[in-house]
Amino acid sequence: MEFIRGFSQRKTSEIHDILNQGVTGTVKINGCIHSIRDMGEFAFVVLRKSEGLVQCVYEDGISEINLKSLKEGMTVEVEGLLHEEERAPHGFEVRLRDIQILSSPQEGTMMPLPISKWKMNTSLESKLAYRPISLRNIRERAKFKIQEGIVRGFRDFLFSQNFTEIRTPKIVAGNAEGGANVFKLEYFGKKAFLAQSPQFYKQTMVGVYDRVFEAAPVFRAEKHNTTRHLNEYTSLDFEMGYINGFEDIMEMETELLRYVFTLLNDKYAKELKLLQITLPEIKDIPSIRFDEAKLMVSEKYDRKIKNPYDLEPEEEVLIGKCIKEEYDSDFVFITHYPSKKRPFYAMDDPADPKFTLSFDLLYKGMEITTGGQRIHDYDIQVEKMISRGMNPEDFTNFLMIHKHGMPPHGGLGIGLERLTMKLLDEQNVRETTLFPRDVSRLEP
Amino acid sequence: MEFIRGFSQRKTSEIHDILNQGVTGTVKINGCIHSIRDMGEFAFVVLRKSEGLVQCVYEDGISEINLKSLKEGMTVEVEGLLHEEERAPHGFEVRLRDIQILSSPQEGTMMPLPISKWKMNTSLESKLAYRPISLRNIRERAKFKIQEGIVRGFRDFLFSQNFTEIRTPKIVAGNAEGGANVFKLEYFGKKAFLAQSPQFYKQTMVGVYDRVFEAAPVFRAEKHNTTRHLNEYTSLDFEMGYINGFEDIMEMETELLRYVFTLLNDKYAKELKLLQITLPEIKDIPSIRFDEAKLMVSEKYDRKIKNPYDLEPEEEVLIGKCIKEEYDSDFVFITHYPSKKRPFYAMDDPADPKFTLSFDLLYKGMEITTGGQRIHDYDIQVEKMISRGMNPEDFTNFLMIHKHGMPPHGGLGIGLERLTMKLLDEQNVRETTLFPRDVSRLEP
Repeated sequence: MEFIRGFSQRKTSEIHDILNQGVTGTVKINGCIHSIRDMGEFAFVVLRKSEGLVQCVYEDGISEINLKSLKEGMTVEVEGLLHEEERAPHGFEVRLRDIQILSSPQEGTMMPLPISKWKMNTSLESKLAYRPISLRNIRERAKFKIQEGIVRGFRDFLFSQNFTEIRTPKIVAGNAEGGANVFKLEYFGKKAFLAQSPQFYKQTMVGVYDRVFEAAPVFRAEKHNTTRHLNEYTSLDFEMGYINGFEDIMEMETELLRYVFTLLNDKYAKELKLLQITLPEIKDIPSIRFDEAKLMVSEKYDRKIKNPYDLEPEEEVLIGKCIKEEYDSDFVFITHYPSKKRPFYAMDDPADPKFTLSFDLLYKGMEITTGGQRIHDYDIQVEKMISRGMNPEDFTNFLMIHKHGMPPHGGLGIGLERLTMKLLDEQNVRETTLFPRDVSRLEP
Repeated sequence: MEFIRGFSQRKTSEIHDILNQGVTGTVKINGCIHSIRDMGEFAFVVLRKSEGLVQCVYEDGISEINLKSLKEGMTVEVEGLLHEEERAPHGFEVRLRDIQILSSPQEGTMMPLPISKWKMNTSLESKLAYRPISLRNIRERAKFKIQEGIVRGFRDFLFSQNFTEIRTPKIVAGNAEGGANVFKLEYFGKKAFLAQSPQFYKQTMVGVYDRVFEAAPVFRAEKHNTTRHLNEYTSLDFEMGYINGFEDIMEMETELLRYVFTLLNDKYAKELKLLQITLPEIKDIPSIRFDEAKLMVSEKYDRKIKNPYDLEPEEEVLIGKCIKEEYDSDFVFITHYPSKKRPFYAMDDPADPKFTLSFDLLYKGMEITTGGQRIHDYDIQVEKMISRGMNPEDFTNFLMIHKHGMPPHGGLGIGLERLTMKLLDEQNVRETTLFPRDVSRLEP
């Protein structure tokens, strides 16, 4: 019988191994040939590795390699001497002795995009058409390390606050957000939908664990093809019980964002530097009522209020601008959205039921979060459903939680790709989505 | 302007606060009334909190409450005196002074299941029908804390091994695993599918980050309604480049499982104890070829080999039994599955192309992982597609990665719910799925 014993001795080094052990002696290292620059008597063969680039130097007559046999896109294992070189990435280079070719790209092909350039200067359209290749560019892939860091921060912070991570179904029988923007599918002869949000399930799970979160895909069949909409995106959701008011949720989000920014500055400094992003400290976040914000912008910029029930994208931009100027904050909470525009599970403000105990968070003039307090009382929830012409019998499973007792609770959902987009000062949410899905894009 | 400043002072305590600060003085604590036991002159009012149960004691004439006004399912904030009491959960109880009712269940309802009992003694069918309520049972919810821990361990371990976390689309244009078991949906006039696995995307991302992982839902439209199949489940996927052979993947999984078991023993000891589960140390894992395993079981148990290309569930059980008896291991790797039964991206064994460089991992006689080395060479991949009657033009986006260079690579997928099921010695995978989706179950 053979046995798998766990890790065996590694024969190759990673960049952090070299930096930890000191730049001296010979090294074996593998990677993908990112670029070759032939300088005559010597050549730079730059390897791309997960941690960054490694400069290897080919020297005529010393390296036991035929330089002509090398090609961008090959993966190789090289052996050579380590030398300090402050102009090289990470401050060292490898003077090549030997190269073993591990794999080769197809004979006769050219890279469709100049991925080894610092900036590819390529249209978003081309980058998306060749997504599997364009992501190999150092700056492109750095964006998604930042995105990884945001989700790590989200989870780590919520774990520290006694939240439980949950996994809720994406194939569902009904839709939480209402409206027609829902993908339908055939499910063994029954009609089913793709979940627009984990709303019902996360409320349900508050009844089980008091505080829960989920970072998972959601699906919206919206037809508008804008720079900020996706038909599939990652929603960072949390929901918490035993709240004293919806301010508790905004406080949790404020602390969460601080934690995420600190984690990025701490663990993703390399990528932030690469993308030339500076993350400021998050100070106290201004909070303004929906109606006051609308009025403020209308007066300050002499605009007519067209839609009294919702914020237009341009209004969001102006509110963000105004708050930035006056309070030097990239973030602003807008509270008390009109009941008419919020879902049936939103709790109305007892002081004025035309408004809800809800909020959006704007970041650099764009909505990245929607949240609020939910109805926990069975009779009130049923009444609100009926007042909207809904049939409570269609929601038996959801109403089960109110029927058998729910604490006062609320929560929020953060659009991960939008948050990443604003954080990285990108102009299109597709720039911060690995493989975007929109009205015209179903692949790659 | 108002500001959200972050956390304000909490007025209530959690169980860990009390244990940290010492069982003395008065305390305010909130929770859901889990059970009320009236003993005549006093009564036990047990609160359910995320961290566990809290025993509160109502005393006639001392507590300023009308006991009759309390009801299971109410959420409350209580004030009282802390007393050590070794028979109570966590070794303390709260002698009630005052109770404030935060919310009430619907008037006149009864709990549909005896959730406050240690064991509900209810059928799986009822537990699933009343899932939002049955999950409130202490033992039921403990299972999903264990599941949370498995995913935490999976991620934390892979982060420590320089893997990058990715998020790939679930709405896709083609299906990776082939076959008819795929959910179809209408996507703005085009045919689309729900992803059966992140296979193409995780291979793609190896070209970007060398090592990647994802923990996300996958969808299989399989019609069989067995105790081990779900139509939506969580797949724990990783994929790694620069491998020397598919043994590297099995080594990584062995270390991963050791890490997960250690983390569970360390951070989820309370839940393991509650469920009476002992997790043994994972020793070196036996590894046996597919054909040898089949022969071994056939000879040892005098069974006829019916299907030479795949393992029947009963064979998996017998292999598990045999390995447990002979090597005291709950795990066994089965390697070199027949090429015929593995997907088109699997790498054939150069020594005998009828077999693949692939494996399954069995845990207590059930397959919980499928993995292997993938083809990285463009020509070989195209050739294998053609030999299977597939049209390479249907896979242009996938083949882009081979065309422009891929390292030798491979990976695996672990079924989270199945792993949880075997770990907890459950008999049905629905027991370890929050809201299972099967042929007849689309809600709750």
